[in-house]
Amino acid sequence: MYRRSYLQIPGPTNIPDPVLQALNHPAINHRGSEFAELLAHNVRGLKQVMQTENDILLFPSSGSGGLEAAIVNLLSPGDKVLAVNMGVFSQRMGQIAHNFGASVTWIEKEWGTAVTAADYRAVLEHDLKYEYKAVFVTHNETATGVLVDVESVRRMLDDLHHPALLVVDAVSSLAISDLQTDTWGVDVVVSASQKGLMLPGGLSVISVSPKAWAAQERATMPKWYWNFSTMRQRMAIGQMPYTPAINLFFGLEVALKLLQEEGMPNVFRRHTRNALAMQAGLMAMGLELLVENEAERSPAVTAVKLPANIAYQDLARGTEQLGVTIGGGLQRLEGKIFRVGHLGMLHEMEVIATLGALEMVLHKLGHDLQLGVATGAAMASYLR
Amino acid sequence: MYRRSYLQIPGPTNIPDPVLQALNHPAINHRGSEFAELLAHNVRGLKQVMQTENDILLFPSSGSGGLEAAIVNLLSPGDKVLAVNMGVFSQRMGQIAHNFGASVTWIEKEWGTAVTAADYRAVLEHDLKYEYKAVFVTHNETATGVLVDVESVRRMLDDLHHPALLVVDAVSSLAISDLQTDTWGVDVVVSASQKGLMLPGGLSVISVSPKAWAAQERATMPKWYWNFSTMRQRMAIGQMPYTPAINLFFGLEVALKLLQEEGMPNVFRRHTRNALAMQAGLMAMGLELLVENEAERSPAVTAVKLPANIAYQDLARGTEQLGVTIGGGLQRLEGKIFRVGHLGMLHEMEVIATLGALEMVLHKLGHDLQLGVATGAAMASYLR
Amino acid sequence: MYRRSYLQIPGPTNIPDPVLQALNHPAINHRGSEFAELLAHNVRGLKQVMQTENDILLFPSSGSGGLEAAIVNLLSPGDKVLAVNMGVFSQRMGQIAHNFGASVTWIEKEWGTAVTAADYRAVLEHDLKYEYKAVFVTHNETATGVLVDVESVRRMLDDLHHPALLVVDAVSSLAISDLQTDTWGVDVVVSASQKGLMLPGGLSVISVSPKAWAAQERATMPKWYWNFSTMRQRMAIGQMPYTPAINLFFGLEVALKLLQEEGMPNVFRRHTRNALAMQAGLMAMGLELLVENEAERSPAVTAVKLPANIAYQDLARGTEQLGVTIGGGLQRLEGKIFRVGHLGMLHEMEVIATLGALEMVLHKLGHDLQLGVATGAAMASYLR
Amino acid sequence: MYRRSYLQIPGPTNIPDPVLQALNHPAINHRGSEFAELLAHNVRGLKQVMQTENDILLFPSSGSGGLEAAIVNLLSPGDKVLAVNMGVFSQRMGQIAHNFGASVTWIEKEWGTAVTAADYRAVLEHDLKYEYKAVFVTHNETATGVLVDVESVRRMLDDLHHPALLVVDAVSSLAISDLQTDTWGVDVVVSASQKGLMLPGGLSVISVSPKAWAAQERATMPKWYWNFSTMRQRMAIGQMPYTPAINLFFGLEVALKLLQEEGMPNVFRRHTRNALAMQAGLMAMGLELLVENEAERSPAVTAVKLPANIAYQDLARGTEQLGVTIGGGLQRLEGKIFRVGHLGMLHEMEVIATLGALEMVLHKLGHDLQLGVATGAAMASYLR
Repeated sequence: MYRRSYLQIPGPTNIPDPVLQALNHPAINHRGSEFAELLAHNVRGLKQVMQTENDILLFPSSGSGGLEAAIVNLLSPGDKVLAVNMGVFSQRMGQIAHNFGASVTWIEKEWGTAVTAADYRAVLEHDLKYEYKAVFVTHNETATGVLVDVESVRRMLDDLHHPALLVVDAVSSLAISDLQTDTWGVDVVVSASQKGLMLPGGLSVISVSPKAWAAQERATMPKWYWNFSTMRQRMAIGQMPYTPAINLFFGLEVALKLLQEEGMPNVFRRHTRNALAMQAGLMAMGLELLVENEAERSPAVTAVKLPANIAYQDLARGTEQLGVTIGGGLQRLEGKIFRVGHLGMLHEMEVIATLGALEMVLHKLGHDLQLGVATGAAMASYLR
Repeated sequence: MYRRSYLQIPGPTNIPDPVLQALNHPAINHRGSEFAELLAHNVRGLKQVMQTENDILLFPSSGSGGLEAAIVNLLSPGDKVLAVNMGVFSQRMGQIAHNFGASVTWIEKEWGTAVTAADYRAVLEHDLKYEYKAVFVTHNETATGVLVDVESVRRMLDDLHHPALLVVDAVSSLAISDLQTDTWGVDVVVSASQKGLMLPGGLSVISVSPKAWAAQERATMPKWYWNFSTMRQRMAIGQMPYTPAINLFFGLEVALKLLQEEGMPNVFRRHTRNALAMQAGLMAMGLELLVENEAERSPAVTAVKLPANIAYQDLARGTEQLGVTIGGGLQRLEGKIFRVGHLGMLHEMEVIATLGALEMVLHKLGHDLQLGVATGAAMASYLR
Repeated sequence: MYRRSYLQIPGPTNIPDPVLQALNHPAINHRGSEFAELLAHNVRGLKQVMQTENDILLFPSSGSGGLEAAIVNLLSPGDKVLAVNMGVFSQRMGQIAHNFGASVTWIEKEWGTAVTAADYRAVLEHDLKYEYKAVFVTHNETATGVLVDVESVRRMLDDLHHPALLVVDAVSSLAISDLQTDTWGVDVVVSASQKGLMLPGGLSVISVSPKAWAAQERATMPKWYWNFSTMRQRMAIGQMPYTPAINLFFGLEVALKLLQEEGMPNVFRRHTRNALAMQAGLMAMGLELLVENEAERSPAVTAVKLPANIAYQDLARGTEQLGVTIGGGLQRLEGKIFRVGHLGMLHEMEVIATLGALEMVLHKLGHDLQLGVATGAAMASYLR
Repeated sequence: MYRRSYLQIPGPTNIPDPVLQALNHPAINHRGSEFAELLAHNVRGLKQVMQTENDILLFPSSGSGGLEAAIVNLLSPGDKVLAVNMGVFSQRMGQIAHNFGASVTWIEKEWGTAVTAADYRAVLEHDLKYEYKAVFVTHNETATGVLVDVESVRRMLDDLHHPALLVVDAVSSLAISDLQTDTWGVDVVVSASQKGLMLPGGLSVISVSPKAWAAQERATMPKWYWNFSTMRQRMAIGQMPYTPAINLFFGLEVALKLLQEEGMPNVFRRHTRNALAMQAGLMAMGLELLVENEAERSPAVTAVKLPANIAYQDLARGTEQLGVTIGGGLQRLEGKIFRVGHLGMLHEMEVIATLGALEMVLHKLGHDLQLGVATGAAMASYLR
């Protein structure tokens, strides 16, 4: 019998039914007024969600495409940038910049810890000639479940009077964790459709500050598809430089309505509440979280150390048979952790179902636990 | 934020996504070959699910319409019938027969107990002239959660050589609990779309044995819409006497495929397993089930006595806020019980989520329980 | 390759995409507040469409079920009623009344002509004791494409001071042709979901005047499923006496919104305009319409005499291969006419496509016509 | 009232209902076995449609992204390439190559004529050192409606023993016009989801020959997102380097099934038949086609010279009001032509509806024509 799926990976996330229904829209002219209105409507909604008055650009691509777009529009070959390696996804920005000829300085962090303003400062305070053109921050490192304090990075830059662009990868944090784009002076925010926006993949979302636009004019990295100027020009007349992923726009309209109805502060609170309940349940089973520092734990995803004698494949296959999909460790964390996503459309019962599946499978695999201990801990967390 | 709904009432049931997608079908000609093939295909599938070679008739109506159809086609005013009162839904058949002029003998049972073959026998063994034309059996009494042993009623009739028609209301048992229509000699089975068939409401499904057809020819209760003969004639040429609820036929095609893929024995086993886990969880919270006799408990729905000091409205509103919909007591049981449906597309995680919601709300309402005790007991039941 | 279908039969009609999308709604509790609100909302919308303040009742059934419901609630066995035979569907009401024991007087009309107020008067003016309890009017006879002047029947009854109930079958006219329920004093209007309401079949819609309610209290025809009182009681608290066809209610919400946005006078005008264009095209091909009296021609469906030497099956199969479904003659008109529906979501281009298909097939079958003559005539009709 | 839309632009195309229904699929794990099977299934289907045994790569992007991907994977800065300017879309490939540092030689053609093998030969026969690394061919120039003879370009290259890569933009020709990738030795074919594949936009499809893979290893243009090697590696294990546009994969599965059921030769024939009928209708109204050479006319889109005194905006707005969307001239052709798409899911009745709308609007705008002349000419074309 068909099972409901509990897709508890850190994206793509479970799609709300009204969003699913909206995807089912007949084709329309991408150069007609219906599309223009839909686009304008969605851009207005995204500005609210992204807490910005900056321009919003929308590319038919995954979130990684959005990261590449940001880099090739802001930089020229040879430019110095400050990147972080604290997991697979923070690495990505530095890697892309490197491929396009930037000179990348890496901040190396143990995977499972968060880069801090002090880490960035340690490099930038010696950059007296302001050679660093951009600072890359991964708001939420999906591979390890750490959340970075973006605001403190901004304060540090202000403190140093450093003019570097602040570029934030918010692919797995937008509409999940508070990101005050304008208040915090984030020059470029890159996100994507399949996480907090609760859509299928295929759309990247980018906000661009006036300061970033100025950099864009000077940037010489080669580009055509990702050209911000062309995109801005065409969006100004309600079009796109090429055929957009129109059906996602219909879904986005509904997803933004759902977020608006809940209210962004409530969206953030709900994610925190779910994360705390999930983490309480995981720890109640005697499992150890990868991220030791409680303040650095992500509201989107939790990485858990695999108990000795339990293989990831056995755990994942077991929960999958119960309809619950979890994620594994990537690269150096492969076989060492498992990851549970708790982002997007998620409420108490899905957290409890997910923990229930983990309890049942861990028990079957010989992990010592009293059945009900994780679900009970999560309930207690919610009732606090 | 939109919540997934856990519709844990005893019908309508949660609709599998592929069935939902199939409902979305453009209109077709109800007198064309596409409809004729769809109809024939669905009738073949229903015969498997209903375990019968009898004719299948499909009416655009709820299940209650199917019951009325059965009665007005089998009986004439003045005919004696044997009906049962063990809950709201068993009453219904007797009531309809009464309204159309049948002479109804009632077997009165305490609500929460199941009528037995012995109960029927106590009446029929005195019916030496075979005046009773029909015996009504409600396979699963949805209002109390008891399951009736249909097979033993058949054996009793055979034992008495009694020729009464065996008419079974299987609205909330078809594709949930084993019902061997032909092996057990059930003359008429009435069911509906919105329970074990996992569709929206709007379609009643009826199987008619040759013996029932013979009765149908003699029956003089007035009818037009429900006329079995007209329906059979039109279905024989792939049509209907009036416009059918076509979109449900597209959904039915997919629902039957899902049932076939699982295999009926597995469907029944899954329901039993879910019922046992649900009941284990409920009892672990110190709750008392309405049905004392374990052998009479339904695999479709469980009725639970409300703890003193807990009002149904508070409990139901509380779980509703968590996305879990439960049902209340009907008529004389109103305010005394609540009911949890566990039929249709249902698996371990939905049972655990449902129990989790009940735990959280009962705890908040002051019921003494250790959080995790119900979910834990359900897990243990599944792992046995 | 999949073809768009032009379902040009007189119902079911082509379903607008937004209605289709709405059908795809997950199951909800039919005894919960969400359903209650949806029901109330739809009833309000239907009152506008039906131009009435009378109670609206909704049954899970086809339109024919609605007709049966009206009859068994208004009448007692032996009651005299005045019915019409001017086609298959007008016959139906009289037939149902007869089956339930009414004494039916038939007005016989040639099929293809409309019953008139004078026809009814000829009977009723002799009914000095007011023995006729009900007068049956089929607003639009779907089998022949005639439209009856309901208003003049009302005036005739008033003129005679005759108290008979005016019962109108508006299955294929609601939201197609103006029907002023309250202004014209129509006691009961019966309609269905799959015609002007542009939904799948499965829902009948009935309005009941205070006078009809008074009759309902006295009526003794047997009933349970169709009981108006029970339905009214349950609808008053936002429920139904049995599981409704919930998904149609979600579709109905959208269909009513579409009608409201267009405005009922525009809906009627559009149907008239489409009918005139279709008829102009048909006649331009040298075809003869069944209904000679232009004033009696229906805005919903046009019946056309088959040219000599052209078999219906060949014509219908030919247009079907082009994606255009037409209807045939029923009973005594079988093989003599074909019928083209032009009701529901229909605009210029569908009329032209339909005529184009007819031109191509008739031409292939040897009918003498200049290709483009029908589509051209329809265009000219629209441009007038 | 909601209208069916006749989206007769040269893409995106009307989406078949079964494809629309499939888009409505709940999210799945893009690293799980269900996605891996779906991917493999779709790749197999695409190989049939693309007539190739070459590797297929799928990028979350529009077709233009696929063109950029091809260029940055095949070439190094400074490489010479031969490009064509015969319309907006043929320009694009040369422009992208230029932006990434290639040395582009342009063949200039009058817009409305097709580049020929002779045009390419005129350049390449002087390239005795084989400095041209790639030859760009736009199979169907969407902006003007010309079709290029790809096979003859291959023969010319063979004739010259020229090793340049043959790179074909088949965005608006795949599954519309025969393109024998392997037989004709096309090294790279780039297409997209929203044209002949009848899906929403958002997916580009690329086939890569062994010779192209060899070039890929040497190519030094910067890239990360578009990296063919990474994509091939991940696709080999049933995954993607980043989150794919999963829902399009469910739609693609159905679209490929529809194409397979029809059979590719029938798909091509149907497009030719529709194009001829459309063009017959357009010319019957006294309109002049942009492409004079009949052999160069595209089966996907027809460009038509605007009659004097008729403004494009008036024409387009007029047909839009009838539900028919046409396209305008781009860049130097703006205001001079209009374009009618006839690709994807399209049959006789949509062609006739489109012509009917054009007739009605042109007539209203004062163009001298006899109503029915275009639809009649199209019918005659079909009946030949």
